[in-house]
Amino acid sequence: MTYVKDFKWEKGLNVKDLVNQYNNLGFQSIELARATETIIKMKKASAKVFFTFTSNMVTSGLRGFFAQLIKLGIPDIIVTTVGGLEEDIMKAYGEKFVIGDFRSDDVALYEKGVNRVGNLYITNESYCNFENIMLPILSKLYQKKKRWAVSEMLKEIGFMLNDEDSILYQAAKNNVDIYCPAITDGAFGFHLFMFQQDHDDFIVDVVKDFKNILLSTSQDDIKGLISLGGSISKHHAIFACLLNGGLDYAVYMTTAHEKSGSMSGATTNEAKSWGKVKDDSDAVTVIGDATITFTLAMISALEKLNEEGLLKNG
Amino acid sequence: MTYVKDFKWEKGLNVKDLVNQYNNLGFQSIELARATETIIKMKKASAKVFFTFTSNMVTSGLRGFFAQLIKLGIPDIIVTTVGGLEEDIMKAYGEKFVIGDFRSDDVALYEKGVNRVGNLYITNESYCNFENIMLPILSKLYQKKKRWAVSEMLKEIGFMLNDEDSILYQAAKNNVDIYCPAITDGAFGFHLFMFQQDHDDFIVDVVKDFKNILLSTSQDDIKGLISLGGSISKHHAIFACLLNGGLDYAVYMTTAHEKSGSMSGATTNEAKSWGKVKDDSDAVTVIGDATITFTLAMISALEKLNEEGLLKNG
Amino acid sequence: MTYVKDFKWEKGLNVKDLVNQYNNLGFQSIELARATETIIKMKKASAKVFFTFTSNMVTSGLRGFFAQLIKLGIPDIIVTTVGGLEEDIMKAYGEKFVIGDFRSDDVALYEKGVNRVGNLYITNESYCNFENIMLPILSKLYQKKKRWAVSEMLKEIGFMLNDEDSILYQAAKNNVDIYCPAITDGAFGFHLFMFQQDHDDFIVDVVKDFKNILLSTSQDDIKGLISLGGSISKHHAIFACLLNGGLDYAVYMTTAHEKSGSMSGATTNEAKSWGKVKDDSDAVTVIGDATITFTLAMISALEKLNEEGLLKNG
Amino acid sequence: MTYVKDFKWEKGLNVKDLVNQYNNLGFQSIELARATETIIKMKKASAKVFFTFTSNMVTSGLRGFFAQLIKLGIPDIIVTTVGGLEEDIMKAYGEKFVIGDFRSDDVALYEKGVNRVGNLYITNESYCNFENIMLPILSKLYQKKKRWAVSEMLKEIGFMLNDEDSILYQAAKNNVDIYCPAITDGAFGFHLFMFQQDHDDFIVDVVKDFKNILLSTSQDDIKGLISLGGSISKHHAIFACLLNGGLDYAVYMTTAHEKSGSMSGATTNEAKSWGKVKDDSDAVTVIGDATITFTLAMISALEKLNEEGLLKNG
Repeated sequence: MTYVKDFKWEKGLNVKDLVNQYNNLGFQSIELARATETIIKMKKASAKVFFTFTSNMVTSGLRGFFAQLIKLGIPDIIVTTVGGLEEDIMKAYGEKFVIGDFRSDDVALYEKGVNRVGNLYITNESYCNFENIMLPILSKLYQKKKRWAVSEMLKEIGFMLNDEDSILYQAAKNNVDIYCPAITDGAFGFHLFMFQQDHDDFIVDVVKDFKNILLSTSQDDIKGLISLGGSISKHHAIFACLLNGGLDYAVYMTTAHEKSGSMSGATTNEAKSWGKVKDDSDAVTVIGDATITFTLAMISALEKLNEEGLLKNG
Repeated sequence: MTYVKDFKWEKGLNVKDLVNQYNNLGFQSIELARATETIIKMKKASAKVFFTFTSNMVTSGLRGFFAQLIKLGIPDIIVTTVGGLEEDIMKAYGEKFVIGDFRSDDVALYEKGVNRVGNLYITNESYCNFENIMLPILSKLYQKKKRWAVSEMLKEIGFMLNDEDSILYQAAKNNVDIYCPAITDGAFGFHLFMFQQDHDDFIVDVVKDFKNILLSTSQDDIKGLISLGGSISKHHAIFACLLNGGLDYAVYMTTAHEKSGSMSGATTNEAKSWGKVKDDSDAVTVIGDATITFTLAMISALEKLNEEGLLKNG
Repeated sequence: MTYVKDFKWEKGLNVKDLVNQYNNLGFQSIELARATETIIKMKKASAKVFFTFTSNMVTSGLRGFFAQLIKLGIPDIIVTTVGGLEEDIMKAYGEKFVIGDFRSDDVALYEKGVNRVGNLYITNESYCNFENIMLPILSKLYQKKKRWAVSEMLKEIGFMLNDEDSILYQAAKNNVDIYCPAITDGAFGFHLFMFQQDHDDFIVDVVKDFKNILLSTSQDDIKGLISLGGSISKHHAIFACLLNGGLDYAVYMTTAHEKSGSMSGATTNEAKSWGKVKDDSDAVTVIGDATITFTLAMISALEKLNEEGLLKNG
Repeated sequence: MTYVKDFKWEKGLNVKDLVNQYNNLGFQSIELARATETIIKMKKASAKVFFTFTSNMVTSGLRGFFAQLIKLGIPDIIVTTVGGLEEDIMKAYGEKFVIGDFRSDDVALYEKGVNRVGNLYITNESYCNFENIMLPILSKLYQKKKRWAVSEMLKEIGFMLNDEDSILYQAAKNNVDIYCPAITDGAFGFHLFMFQQDHDDFIVDVVKDFKNILLSTSQDDIKGLISLGGSISKHHAIFACLLNGGLDYAVYMTTAHEKSGSMSGATTNEAKSWGKVKDDSDAVTVIGDATITFTLAMISALEKLNEEGLLKNG
């Protein structure tokens, strides 16, 4: 039986000790502490670790952290949406996003060519520059071959970037596949379309990529998932694991609630009915903004994994 | 100046008059009434109407209503995720889903072969039957041609179904394109993969479909959007409209809030900064479970559109 | 076993038939339909019905509906917070609230003497007029006696009003007690304080009122609760019922979720662990804005209760 | 212009440096960092600091932290609900709460005499013991005088406890008034009622306490607020400050959203329309579970205040 303990601050408190205290604190803090423990367990069990996130997580500035996690050997497979990958490329080419306000005057922003994502701003200029980046990239890809599975294409692009803080770059370098089942849903898709206008034999093969994610693990692998936000990135990883016998470890971090039956809000409990998460698995759902909950839980896990020498290049 | 009026029940109150009363009631009820007005305006303006929904909306039982809306001429273009389309096909073949409980024993459900989506259940058997349905469908498609844009494929499948309550059937019959940018993210994707194993030249061309959605409207068209839930279905429709000059009318219905910067929670205000929604547009965001908010707002709009003779086959 | 049925619109659909369809629709719609059934059951069982709501429900315009429900004999006991009672009095004296916008310029509103509650506005003038109303009321009360339990005071005030749409008026007239455990938390409290400055022997006895709510039902009574929103009004009714053996019927309607351990988000399930809700009770939690969910569920119940002649003055 | 920076982990990262990084991270993390800055500013400006929290915050285990904050001189005035004060007393007498599960079998818990609050458990035994504690306390109070303002009573009780980790104890010792506008809404209220049965002249004067909170600050004082959760504790502090000219600094931490017009979800922006928060104030709303967001923001503020010698007994 674990008792609630009176929480206390001590001078110079570090993140690991804060999360340790969360083990005796109620509501979402204990769930967050359990997420840390679950991440540690999946790494100790040498699980194949799926890591999924929505595009806004990249917008938020977690991009550098995700790149670092790849370098440190945390995820084996990534699933995400295309918006975040576009921004990863933009940032690799020097674009900057601005901290703004949730209650901005959106019409005024529009007139200044500024696009709002919550309390962040991205300029139209960044998207224009992206166009100039994408054209030569697609030409190079086309020269290599005509039919690309999405993850192969993304790996190739990763090798073209030169930014230690880039997700695509680190993923390519560290042989972590990035799956993006809705690759056309964004500016990237627009540029694919423009390119295909002149190169009708240029094929983006999403079916092939389903094979790739399916074969990325097997029934015999121990499988873990860290999922930030909902959307198809979450569903795609879970579904691929379901087909291979279900997850042994799962951490869901989301702001969505289960009561509307959405995938974003679906819990690890619901997942057990599907066999998506094994019934004797370690599984935890943490409700809250992942810029806060994930940084806390993951840093705490990194500290402990590092102590035990379980980080790559650590 | 619109004043709050004391709400009153009258015997036999119908949905239209209920929503009319919401025009003088605060918080989400007035937003819902505004959604009704916005839907009416987009139809009166002969806007090209995009309609997007997440898969769980189909699971919920709104499938029959969506099919009816297509028949009545409400949407011109549909964007959704693949899970709902799978279920539309299952139901066209007689599968039934069960009303259950949010707090089910999920391990017990698993042992019985029952999968939970919120407070609904789908059996494994339904998914097994789906496999038997999909194989001949894909064979027929392949015999026709080898390379398919997603929306073309979905139209073809729609014609193969024979169910007045099917979304795919009514969409095919009424020439409403269905876009599904992440077509592989579900059992449908698994069967595409299995089929491609034996037919390597079978291509699902998502890039081509981006062209199709882009050309489905033009800069000159008046454009409207009714979006239920978030995810890529919402984003994809908005993005396609943005590239054609932005939306003139927009109704977002979601349970997500804007404070985590997600697409699901992104408001029509935020959309204005992007030019996704024009600054002088009619745009409204309604927070709540769409099984309730959408049925209310849409039925109220249908009653009024019907009175004015603006419904097809009405 | 209840199956999901394809939802359909029929011309002239009334609220009762809409909610009947919700019995076969997933997520919050089925929970809403269950709320209707639970309300009907509690009335048929002649339960003592507690009805609780937060102040913003009165601000919203539901005030007239609440007054109507009292007239129709739905609630036996009301628990609420003081802000709504202040507004009930203001409106009885002709004050009007305005439908506004969630994204107003709040500093500009302030300069105009307009106070915002979500998308509604209340003017400073309304509060000034309230001061002129309260002084003579308190004088009259003081002339009658010096020590008042809160519910006795509120009944006396109800008799002084002359507005069919007033909650306080209808409650007084129909002998429904209104409990308000935090009577000082608002402008009402300020005027009580001002009055006590000159009349030190003027006592508002909250402890006495706890006795009153406790004795308003007994162990032997069948007890039901309809609770809108959270806060102390919800807790107070539940706690009073717990001390008398727990609720037989409970409907919670709230926008809050259970994951932060708050009373607002606490579910009827959690209540069972306390014995607040009996384990074999009919209990349902509906997530959503009560201006929508409550009007729907309650109107649907009223139609059915009316058909069976179970409404007072119906 | 503040730019988004790629977030990075460094070994041994402490809480202060984590929150510093949040200054360049989007969505709720930057709001949390702003909360830290706002707390620091209110202390540097020697503001009178109101601190409000809902009962579940005490249940969670933050009780010890709140007591520590009082000792360190952070709050000047506390407003809360009675449930948390009951638990503060229980814990001072050795009662323990248990970490449990959100998805417990609530009927089974009930049969074991265990009450659930989210993922925490409190036993019936703790409540029984509380009864034995309260009786002598009330007798002692009654011997002193017959008519008590709530805050005076709570201070007296604080002096009777002997637990460094008790909120009531530290508040009494450090001359921090605790206001509890709904003192009867819980087991405490039940014992007040039982006591009054035999001592009819025992008066709990809530009107007098409104005077006390109103006079606890003046128009001339600089005023700050840190509010966790919603409910009357939040409203009461804001209202008392409004009557004294409004807040100069405000930090709201809540899981509630503004779209249903509730006090729990009301933002610092909305507060500006009322003059509750001055238009040129530093004000920030952080959405998330306060067991996480508050510990992070407050610890980060404590570290910085300590460096500048601004903590009492620091």
